[in-house]
Order: sequence, then structure tokens, then C-alpha cells
Amino acid sequence: MQLTQHTDFGLRLLIVLARKDAPVSLPVFSAQQGLSYHHVAKVAQRLVQAGFAISQRGRSGGMALARPAMEIGLGDVVRKLERGMRLADCATCALKADCALSSVLAEALGAFMGVLDRYTLADVAREGVPAFAPWAMLPQTPGCAVTEPS
Amino acid sequence: MQLTQHTDFGLRLLIVLARKDAPVSLPVFSAQQGLSYHHVAKVAQRLVQAGFAISQRGRSGGMALARPAMEIGLGDVVRKLERGMRLADCATCALKADCALSSVLAEALGAFMGVLDRYTLADVAREGVPAFAPWAMLPQTPGCAVTEPS
Repeated sequence: MQLTQHTDFGLRLLIVLARKDAPVSLPVFSAQQGLSYHHVAKVAQRLVQAGFAISQRGRSGGMALARPAMEIGLGDVVRKLERGMRLADCATCALKADCALSSVLAEALGAFMGVLDRYTLADVAREGVPAFAPWAMLPQTPGCAVTEPS
Repeated sequence: MQLTQHTDFGLRLLIVLARKDAPVSLPVFSAQQGLSYHHVAKVAQRLVQAGFAISQRGRSGGMALARPAMEIGLGDVVRKLERGMRLADCATCALKADCALSSVLAEALGAFMGVLDRYTLADVAREGVPAFAPWAMLPQTPGCAVTEPS
């Protein structure tokens, strides 16, 4: 289970925008992150469409936040960047949603989004916070498929 | 954001096992679900390894639950089937986790798993519950990327 690359890259870009006073060049951002400029440009376009960022043309142009980072909710960003929130593919399942799994997943997703809704871009863009591995919070059991990054 | 196919198919298989008194044939299950037998066999193997199911050989053999459905926690199943719980790919990000995003995502993932931990396979395998579209619970805003299934 993970956020799409689209959302992941969008969050990275927003965090960088929140930390800079001057417009951020997309080619420079793409190079620094080692990402495809084409992909980053599509993400940036979505951020502009969603009202989180603006694009300034010209020699000193680039991307900037459309409003203060503390006014950009993290839940809103994830909702607008994620292309689908179907945790399980009930549409193709022969059980035809005649089970309670979808409602439990909806409740779990609601709890997930509820946490994100309590934070803003300003909260997550802070620098100097201790590096933190989210997977380390998950209970590890012998033979558990939850893995740490290589 | 979605569960992996591996987890999705594993949950479907466990729900079917919970509803049947007799062993379930994997080829029959695969055909009913329109899934690749090869993929289903790998998922079944994982369910056996994780102690959720047993595989019985012979003419009347097949898969069955290893213990009562009410003793199989949904959170445990998802933890053991999901191959990774890295919601964002901090390992490749130039910010080097020097932001608070990972800790917020960890908190959100904890809330997600906390809901699943309150339910068992017996809870979700119940038949006759109203069909429910989890995405319908998400706030929809104009231009929002959250989409309904086609």
C-alpha cells in the first residue's frame, strides 16, 4: 500500500515550494530529485489546477505556492493528487461487494484521511525534524511481509 | 492509494474460505473470480505460511481456514500480505527525510491499521450486507481526482 508517485512527487514539490521565498525552477527541482521533468511538469500542472500553486513565466519565473503553507491542508492535497481511493477492487470481485470488507476499508481510509486533515503543508515542511521511518512503527512479526527499505 | 493485488486477492480468498464448510478448490476459486490461477496459488501459499489457511491434498482437498474466522484479525492479514508499507518513497527523495511528512504518514497509517485491528475475518465475511462504495465516503470537490469506478 502506498501513495501514487504522482502524489509522492507532488508532496515533495509542495514542501520545496514552502521552504523557498523565490520561485522554484521545475528543471532544477527535477534534477535535484532525480525525477523525470515530464512527470514533474504534469504534477505541477495538477497543483496549479487544484489551486495549491502558481506558475510564473519569465527569466526569474518558476513555481510558487498559491497561498501560505499553513492554509494548505495535507488531506486536501492527497485527495486532489490521488487518482483513485479504491483500496480494494470490489468492482471486479465475484462477491459483488456482498461482504463487509468495503465498509471496513472505508472506515480505515476515513481514519487515515482524518489524521492528514489535522496537518497543513507548513507542519510537514519544517526542516530539522528527526529523520523518521514510518514502517518502523508497524509491528514486525516473524515472516511478516512488511519490509524496510533496502 | 490502494492495497496490492496480492492483498486484495488474499482477502477475497479468505472471505470465501470463511463462508464454506468444505475445502475450496483453488482452480474453481480462480475461475469464479476471473483471476490467474498462478497468482492465486502464490497468494494461497502466503496465507498458509502466515498461518491463516491450510492446504489439504487429495480428491476432496483444497484450501480451508487454519482457525475460526473470528480468530483471524484483519490487521494481521493486511500486515502479512502487504509487501511494503512505505506510503511515500523517502529513500529516493532528495529531502532525505528531513521533513515531517513521514511521521504524519506514519500516524495516518497507524490510524488506518488501528481500524483494521478492530475487525476479524468473521466480521467482513458476513453475507447480505448492503453493497457499499468506500469512495462515496470521501468528500468530493469539483476537480477532485478521487474517482468512482467505471
